[in-house]
Amino acid sequence: MDLDPNTDLSFTRTLPIAPALVWDCWTTPAHIKHFFVPKPHSIKSCDIDLRVGGRFNTVMVVNGQEMPNSGVYLEVIPGQRLVFTDAYTEGWKPAPDPFMTAILDLKPDGKGGTIYTATARHRSTETREAHENMGFYDGWGTVVDQLVDYARTL
Amino acid sequence: MDLDPNTDLSFTRTLPIAPALVWDCWTTPAHIKHFFVPKPHSIKSCDIDLRVGGRFNTVMVVNGQEMPNSGVYLEVIPGQRLVFTDAYTEGWKPAPDPFMTAILDLKPDGKGGTIYTATARHRSTETREAHENMGFYDGWGTVVDQLVDYARTL
Repeated sequence: MDLDPNTDLSFTRTLPIAPALVWDCWTTPAHIKHFFVPKPHSIKSCDIDLRVGGRFNTVMVVNGQEMPNSGVYLEVIPGQRLVFTDAYTEGWKPAPDPFMTAILDLKPDGKGGTIYTATARHRSTETREAHENMGFYDGWGTVVDQLVDYARTL
Repeated sequence: MDLDPNTDLSFTRTLPIAPALVWDCWTTPAHIKHFFVPKPHSIKSCDIDLRVGGRFNTVMVVNGQEMPNSGVYLEVIPGQRLVFTDAYTEGWKPAPDPFMTAILDLKPDGKGGTIYTATARHRSTETREAHENMGFYDGWGTVVDQLVDYARTL
């Protein structure tokens, strides 16, 4: 994938857990709740239909306020690639003002771990900038830390 | 699929040709050129990578002016369902200002023909209205007539 520095945000980290475990965490509602938002924010509910066009709906609780987020999966390649977006809800209904498309790429690092690349693609330079200012790198980085910590308890 | 009268445009027609033939016409660049825009407008080029996330790029010629249109497929169920949009280009790069998502549903009519449902979903009431005023029903209807006429020569 050719990144566009004007509209994309992306980072790559090597995680000490296997791609299959990362995949399970990212695609199972019961697991999602444990890492998907930086604590002390939390996930109240998560509803997943893991197929292309299927729903990925969550309700976050941020500073006591519920924030529903509805989306769909665009690409589902088990253990390797997960793409989702808020640009659609189920049935390919376009959202009025989509924020981003997230692409998670998982590769084995050859030592039992995972080379984890998370990319957020945006419609405009402004949205990318807003996302960076909201704390993309810190936030998505914390999510990965939480994922690893949680996965190790499984 | 639940239609939303505020943002969707849709019609259903029964065509006297088989779903497999309709499918071939809709997914083959050499065929697309013969029906995809109402004549005398034409298609200068068509580039297809028929898979989820793959490109569906065309260059139309309208009143002598070239109009490139880039998009991707969201769903590809051979002989049954084709979903494409200009909301992304390849690599899931979000388009700044997407116009619509098109859903083509094909079902056998039990007599060798096809029950053909074409749906255009939009982000807003305004876009839906603009599309209707641009002549959605006439235009997409003419495209179907041209498709049937062309398919019968194959």
